[in-house]
Amino acid sequence: MGDSLSMKILKEHLVEGELVPGKEIAIRIDQTLLQDATGTMAMLEFMATGIPRVKVGLAAQYVDHNLLQTDNKNADDHAFLASAAARFGVRLSKPGNGVSHQVHLERFGVPGTTLLGADSHTPTAAGMGQLAIGAGGLDVALAMAGYPFHLTCPKIFGVKLSNRLQPWVSGKDVVLEMLRRHSVKGGVGKIIEYYGPGVATLSATDRATIGNMGAELGATSTVFQSDENTRLFLEAQGRGELWRELMPDPDATYDEHDEIDLAQVVPLIACPSSPDNVVPVSEIEGLKVDQVIVGSSVNSSFRDLMTVCRILDGRRIAQGLSFHINPGSRQVLENVVAQGGFMMLLLAGGQVHQPGCLGCIGMGQAPGTNQVSLRTFPRNFPGRSGTKEDRVYLCSPETAAAAGVFGVVTDPRKLEALLPWPDVKNPERYLVDDSGIEPPPEDGSGVEIVTGPNIVPFPEFEALPEGLEVEVIIKVGDNVSTDTIMPAGNKVLPFRSNIPAISKFVFEQADTEFSLRATEKGDGAVVGGENYGQGSSREHAALAPRYLGIRVKLAKSFARIHRSNLINFGILPLVFRDPADYDRIGQGDRISIPKVRELVQGGASEIPVFVNGQEVATLLQASERERRELLAGGLLNAVKEESHGRKA
Amino acid sequence: MGDSLSMKILKEHLVEGELVPGKEIAIRIDQTLLQDATGTMAMLEFMATGIPRVKVGLAAQYVDHNLLQTDNKNADDHAFLASAAARFGVRLSKPGNGVSHQVHLERFGVPGTTLLGADSHTPTAAGMGQLAIGAGGLDVALAMAGYPFHLTCPKIFGVKLSNRLQPWVSGKDVVLEMLRRHSVKGGVGKIIEYYGPGVATLSATDRATIGNMGAELGATSTVFQSDENTRLFLEAQGRGELWRELMPDPDATYDEHDEIDLAQVVPLIACPSSPDNVVPVSEIEGLKVDQVIVGSSVNSSFRDLMTVCRILDGRRIAQGLSFHINPGSRQVLENVVAQGGFMMLLLAGGQVHQPGCLGCIGMGQAPGTNQVSLRTFPRNFPGRSGTKEDRVYLCSPETAAAAGVFGVVTDPRKLEALLPWPDVKNPERYLVDDSGIEPPPEDGSGVEIVTGPNIVPFPEFEALPEGLEVEVIIKVGDNVSTDTIMPAGNKVLPFRSNIPAISKFVFEQADTEFSLRATEKGDGAVVGGENYGQGSSREHAALAPRYLGIRVKLAKSFARIHRSNLINFGILPLVFRDPADYDRIGQGDRISIPKVRELVQGGASEIPVFVNGQEVATLLQASERERRELLAGGLLNAVKEESHGRKA
Repeated sequence: MGDSLSMKILKEHLVEGELVPGKEIAIRIDQTLLQDATGTMAMLEFMATGIPRVKVGLAAQYVDHNLLQTDNKNADDHAFLASAAARFGVRLSKPGNGVSHQVHLERFGVPGTTLLGADSHTPTAAGMGQLAIGAGGLDVALAMAGYPFHLTCPKIFGVKLSNRLQPWVSGKDVVLEMLRRHSVKGGVGKIIEYYGPGVATLSATDRATIGNMGAELGATSTVFQSDENTRLFLEAQGRGELWRELMPDPDATYDEHDEIDLAQVVPLIACPSSPDNVVPVSEIEGLKVDQVIVGSSVNSSFRDLMTVCRILDGRRIAQGLSFHINPGSRQVLENVVAQGGFMMLLLAGGQVHQPGCLGCIGMGQAPGTNQVSLRTFPRNFPGRSGTKEDRVYLCSPETAAAAGVFGVVTDPRKLEALLPWPDVKNPERYLVDDSGIEPPPEDGSGVEIVTGPNIVPFPEFEALPEGLEVEVIIKVGDNVSTDTIMPAGNKVLPFRSNIPAISKFVFEQADTEFSLRATEKGDGAVVGGENYGQGSSREHAALAPRYLGIRVKLAKSFARIHRSNLINFGILPLVFRDPADYDRIGQGDRISIPKVRELVQGGASEIPVFVNGQEVATLLQASERERRELLAGGLLNAVKEESHGRKA
Repeated sequence: MGDSLSMKILKEHLVEGELVPGKEIAIRIDQTLLQDATGTMAMLEFMATGIPRVKVGLAAQYVDHNLLQTDNKNADDHAFLASAAARFGVRLSKPGNGVSHQVHLERFGVPGTTLLGADSHTPTAAGMGQLAIGAGGLDVALAMAGYPFHLTCPKIFGVKLSNRLQPWVSGKDVVLEMLRRHSVKGGVGKIIEYYGPGVATLSATDRATIGNMGAELGATSTVFQSDENTRLFLEAQGRGELWRELMPDPDATYDEHDEIDLAQVVPLIACPSSPDNVVPVSEIEGLKVDQVIVGSSVNSSFRDLMTVCRILDGRRIAQGLSFHINPGSRQVLENVVAQGGFMMLLLAGGQVHQPGCLGCIGMGQAPGTNQVSLRTFPRNFPGRSGTKEDRVYLCSPETAAAAGVFGVVTDPRKLEALLPWPDVKNPERYLVDDSGIEPPPEDGSGVEIVTGPNIVPFPEFEALPEGLEVEVIIKVGDNVSTDTIMPAGNKVLPFRSNIPAISKFVFEQADTEFSLRATEKGDGAVVGGENYGQGSSREHAALAPRYLGIRVKLAKSFARIHRSNLINFGILPLVFRDPADYDRIGQGDRISIPKVRELVQGGASEIPVFVNGQEVATLLQASERERRELLAGGLLNAVKEESHGRKA
């Protein structure tokens, strides 16, 4: 029985534990990725470790989220990150240089290595044959400090691809097909590995698109082979020497299995307000569209953007529709300019923005009230666009461009009446420009860290008490995303390095009184349904509630990264043994967990919780390491205790 | 004794009054300009007149201010303006099509006509030989409704230009020289007319730059001749048939006079935080610069942007500096792309944004704390950038580019060491693309007006009472700008069509309690120094205080547009007869003006005001028409009374 490629890479990097699904393992991390929204806090956390220079092969800090600069805070963060990157040996990708995932793929990714990124879409690097995992900022900070990364050993979910995509269908449709079949929970606890003869028909950037939205399936990561297409992409980037072939064994086995006939994939679209609410585009054809946005981490390649250019070439954006383009990177933009695509966009009436995340994380481009917005983005969680009760659809660049031309949702295959399928290929040799990347000095020890008034040190948290007596501050339903727990957008994102300030916005969209009530009540609890905490990796969705006094979260199930973040900040993630017990708890109920410290310390997997005096059975699935962190009141406390222990 | 060109155009358009400086006149308006920040309210005001279609030769609505779209409000405003423009016969320049003034110059301006714009920088059209005046939105709304525009007949301030500018010196330096000599009050009550042999050496767009910042001199307008250069620009725009020659009489006389030897003008820079705080660039050379922004209404031409491209060509932006480019219009951007300039900007590391006002009105691009920002913008009033205690410098594109290359303030003539003066000319034939302009349908009567939840009808105001008893809610100093009275920026601008909401931000930077206090106290007064209400034309600086109960403003002097706006919304603008009396009034003082209604009605120019019982003499300089408006409680009330009177 042969190994999957995922298993091979895991074996190469395993430093603790056994590769048995469900057991905790630790792996060596070769590269780390921070962006500015999660990165300011992660950098503060790295600083808290006291390590003078990163101990990882390559550490990159991107500035791609907070580009609007509506007051001093964004620019202060940029200055902080630039100084910290220089000080600690991190490569800085400056504002305007592009979305972290696209730039990392272009300039830094290496086949067969591991990448840990403080962003849930880090698995975009799957396009490079990298094992790339999204994690909380603190996990990444510790990886930068040289610690291995702990995770539950995932199952390997093999998806066999056969045949090739039809014209006007692209990588985005493949991953939308996966979401249609498997939902936003289909990848939880798994690495999705695409294999089979169809893989060779997909370019590195198509694979990146599919890897990116593996995050929407809840997957730990997505893995693609490193083959001739990977080599071509690396060669085109002038980095061909880094290529090595990586394939699963021909007789590899997988824990789960599915198969996609690429020739059967049709243009798909995710309807409001979940990435798995997927239907064929043809089913909702004719729906009037008010806004289209092309770009973001999931569709940021040259092929994606140039395909849109070619479709719009010589045409006009439909009346009453605004058409925005967010290039994935400065490199992509320059290559599109060099091949004449930029002018096609302008002449068609497109609004071209600087490279970056922008509207994808609610930093601008919010649609109007009741407007329909078609986006090539990875997420359409409610309100993520910046507009309440938004109507955001997710689709391929081809489908987005078709809506731009016709003004209504249109199966892109109908474009065939206007032009032949452009079949754009990525360049054989990209125009490469690293002017937006600042390498750190050989010795950064003399660099002064610049901290503006908005950069507030990491708060201190107390250890887990003997017993907990708390009130349920809020109860929410299934699939609540970290966007709901800790909103992003221009109002909130700039406070990512200021926990006291950002905490005021926790659960703001669900309940404007949450933060006030939590503060008043002292210690508190949150109750959630299935897949609680899906979506973005933002650790602020754990850190800020903890700051407000949340000590325990009870849910039917937790999303992987959020569960880790809860433990990292000393919040107990308890799962109902009987999901029906969810219905027995309401907002305002009193919860007590007597002797909780003893139970956690003793390794108890079952934690009895008393709701208004009645017992409810809950499970604590936590490794010994995680229990130490929970007892200490969080990972940083645990690391400090450990280093004190060592010193003493 | 011959006529100045200003006088000739005024004579052609005079419909009421005598052309005697200081007397009220009314002129016919040929074209109107609205942008989206002032335009939503102006459009609501136009709708309040009940006129079914605009009665002006050309009415244009631009969307250039509120482009960030951080929530539904911007997009809702855009949809409202698009529908209202179609309904009422207004040309719509869509988001991303560029700054109103640049686009108007390119596509609509006609020599010898009058343009009334709800934006203080409307006199940019001086580059076209147009008499262009900035006014409050209500004035423009009434011009759209076919009413003539009333103003105090200005003095004509002749400025004779001789010789030609030296290399590396451009139009911006000429107007900075004017500001250095004459301050932000130097143009109050005047039209500045540039004439003499030097004018012919300036291109239409250089003249536009100089006209634009006439607003910073406080001028009613700026006028340039229509000559061969004007013809060349119109020809290059494919609009040559609209050209006619317009020159002052050779023996024209001027009410005031100055002279500039263009050959003696050196690169100049306005230091924080007033456009008249001007010194030679050489005086502050070496100052470390953190941010540079090129673009905005005052330096938005092809020549300006392409000059920057040429300077940056093959070079890298200095380390630690961010370099932003805001193209003035889609047309400029397309022409720069066509000539290869865009790639020069990208390869140098510039961040290119969509065409629009952006950072100039605090919509993004705010500098970090203590950062030095060099901008080719027209204004650097405190906090206008979005950052409190900002350090914003205003300079030419050449000086901005030099800072980009060297990282410190540098006299651009030092660039001579790196490259010959690029001496960029505007194209002989622009690439013209009107895809961003939506002409209205022949019959718009069936178009439904789209109003989102943020678009709130114009508030009702009561008439002037018999006597006033009010409290001084705030006292401020000299040269307080409308940016201080009614801040812009991303937090506030989106509420421009929602008076109850925007009123909460009045004087927010000076005193966060102002709005609360004003609301509590009921009727109130504001006390100011010299040149009160300079800067932006925003009528919200009158309308929002009125909504909060402000009934009277006492000042040493008022800026022209703000004074008109005060009257338009029924606030008494009283001037201290003895400026020393300013010192006798403080915040919290009680003010009574007995029989104020009778005094205003009777034409009294002197209004006795009792401050804590002691009499202070004040002057009310108001025409009969303005008095009717004050009595009615504002211009819209007066118009309604009039139309009721006609009906009865």
